[in-house]
Amino acid sequence: VPPRPPARDTATRLADTRRRLATDIDAWVATAGPDGAAPHLVPLSFVWIDDVLLLSTSGGSVTGRNLSATGRARVAVGPTRDVVLVEGTVEAVALGDLPPAEADAFAEATGFDPRAESDDFRYFRVRPERVQAWREANELAGRDLMRDGRWVER
Amino acid sequence: VPPRPPARDTATRLADTRRRLATDIDAWVATAGPDGAAPHLVPLSFVWIDDVLLLSTSGGSVTGRNLSATGRARVAVGPTRDVVLVEGTVEAVALGDLPPAEADAFAEATGFDPRAESDDFRYFRVRPERVQAWREANELAGRDLMRDGRWVER
Repeated sequence: VPPRPPARDTATRLADTRRRLATDIDAWVATAGPDGAAPHLVPLSFVWIDDVLLLSTSGGSVTGRNLSATGRARVAVGPTRDVVLVEGTVEAVALGDLPPAEADAFAEATGFDPRAESDDFRYFRVRPERVQAWREANELAGRDLMRDGRWVER
Repeated sequence: VPPRPPARDTATRLADTRRRLATDIDAWVATAGPDGAAPHLVPLSFVWIDDVLLLSTSGGSVTGRNLSATGRARVAVGPTRDVVLVEGTVEAVALGDLPPAEADAFAEATGFDPRAESDDFRYFRVRPERVQAWREANELAGRDLMRDGRWVER
């Protein structure tokens, strides 16, 4: 067993987390069917703009339907042993209703422009209520970096 | 944009998927609250034994409670651009009720032995109904490798 690095302090986790959210584009997006009992999970591209996680997928996909029906997502960014988890409420936005600057930022960051896809595509804004980050079990304590929509004090 | 490799054929995807399930130990585990609307997602270790994905977590954690209440999980293995997704029914197993050979295999593969943790830990057997694998958008067609609990013919 390799030696385990010490747990990062809150300031370091906040800095690491903000850097990852600002630069990563791959996320795991978990949603739930409105009937309960039916978890869904797919990889999607995202961009982080002004503390909002912006996604896009087809409105008719399982994820799109779950997001529209429940208004909730839990999104993982980073690998399993260096995770950032973002949980919050979700707002669906029609392709033409997103400010062009945000749509351009999404296309530029992800290399994928939903405006060039079928009309069934939607943007989804995930407004975080909770953000967590940890690497290994020794970082489970102190993993909450945002609670009730507010970043913790460092 | 780098050139996109051609889509793998079914035989290659089946071989890649079985190899990954047999050797990886990190998974993203998505569950849903029984009330609907509440997706949950955490990284957990797993081992794949006889086409069953074996996990362990605390019975009182959100994931443990969701698994017990709904009997369903969707689990991702591999990175976002080389995914294996396993969806199925879930059976909770008390620590002392798992065959020791399976418990030993779990501890040896993951480096984590739930039998050494608090009594609140449980094993969870995910019996796959559906297995999917894809890398990029050109592999979305043909992504189903198991349907209704049966591996597709290659």
